[in-house]
Amino acid sequence: MCKGAGMIGPRMATLLGVLTTDLELSPEQAQQAIKQAVDLSFNRISVDGHMSTNDAILLLSSGKVAPPGNDREWSIFHDSLTACCIDLAKTIPNDGEGSSHLIEIIVSGALTNNDAEKIARSIASSNLVKTAITGADPNWGRIVSAAGYAGAEINIAKMNLKLNGHPVFQAGQPVLFDEAIVSQSLSSQRQVDIDLVVGAGAGHATHWTSDLTYEYVRINSEYRT
Amino acid sequence: MCKGAGMIGPRMATLLGVLTTDLELSPEQAQQAIKQAVDLSFNRISVDGHMSTNDAILLLSSGKVAPPGNDREWSIFHDSLTACCIDLAKTIPNDGEGSSHLIEIIVSGALTNNDAEKIARSIASSNLVKTAITGADPNWGRIVSAAGYAGAEINIAKMNLKLNGHPVFQAGQPVLFDEAIVSQSLSSQRQVDIDLVVGAGAGHATHWTSDLTYEYVRINSEYRT
Repeated sequence: MCKGAGMIGPRMATLLGVLTTDLELSPEQAQQAIKQAVDLSFNRISVDGHMSTNDAILLLSSGKVAPPGNDREWSIFHDSLTACCIDLAKTIPNDGEGSSHLIEIIVSGALTNNDAEKIARSIASSNLVKTAITGADPNWGRIVSAAGYAGAEINIAKMNLKLNGHPVFQAGQPVLFDEAIVSQSLSSQRQVDIDLVVGAGAGHATHWTSDLTYEYVRINSEYRT
Repeated sequence: MCKGAGMIGPRMATLLGVLTTDLELSPEQAQQAIKQAVDLSFNRISVDGHMSTNDAILLLSSGKVAPPGNDREWSIFHDSLTACCIDLAKTIPNDGEGSSHLIEIIVSGALTNNDAEKIARSIASSNLVKTAITGADPNWGRIVSAAGYAGAEINIAKMNLKLNGHPVFQAGQPVLFDEAIVSQSLSSQRQVDIDLVVGAGAGHATHWTSDLTYEYVRINSEYRT
């Protein structure tokens, strides 16, 4: 179960999440498992990038089932918990304030995973990228430039970008593509896939965000506290 | 002279600026003077925080007038150049895409000037702060929380915040204030002053940004490249 809509920023936000299991886990085992899962899921989402003061993800166990008995079982448990957290985490920007698209940003080929995360966050927090998606505009320039100022290593000559699977930028150059087809794909699909290879190494990261709409501005300029 | 409206991010953006002087300066003297002035002016503005690939500030000299003759004269020249750059720089977010307010963020009492700049940038790049100003909402919580996640030292017990001169948060606590009066001041003035003291030292910084409006979203979701 989880809840959140606005004030959603990297490294968690106004977000409440509860996961339950029957596995008998020590507090340390549960803490380690949920931290690892949250780092790849709830800490990889944003709506407006404004971190909230009130976040909580809880993993509760009834203790009814014996814990994993070997490394392989632990690994299955960790992977399942992460997959479950990713499923839940994605629902938050999908349902984010004014959201008309869920944007999945997959960065690969970075020098390190940390660099990939920096690039993904930079793209995810660009209002120009977010409004381009709102307008179904296959604007590769806004995405590539947001990657460029992220402060991470990139190799322009090996950069490739796909939007919803359509190549729009390859080997550091824009590609001739049918704008009508790609734009139609952006406007007709709720989820938009931004797949960026930066050509500097083997680091990768995924980040999910929402687009930026009139409705986001309406909600947050009219809402009073 | 300067030009710029969107794709305006920290550390310059799609921005062209030209300054002229009659002073006879060596290229090194001109470069040092303009760098120092730009760091406190054009590098302290943002519209959407998306850094552009195309920035230029030029200082051109006719060489008709003898250069400053002593430290005092140099200091007057540097201060005048900085003041001139600040005047020009502020016109950019004031005229930023969809801008309905120019927001001046003055952070003081930070541990270092660098910390103050981090806090000011964090506030300036929050869509929640920007939409609150659009809606004339004296929402101190959004401002204080953006300062909180900036990654700089703050002393909550000594934090003070004024909006257009009205105290709304003092010594780490919200203050009872007349919302109608402050809101009226936010909606009637083109320039909004956010004055935040963070109580950790003597560092200070100023940043200028625009608010976030329907018009910004319209321009950037409808505009095609």
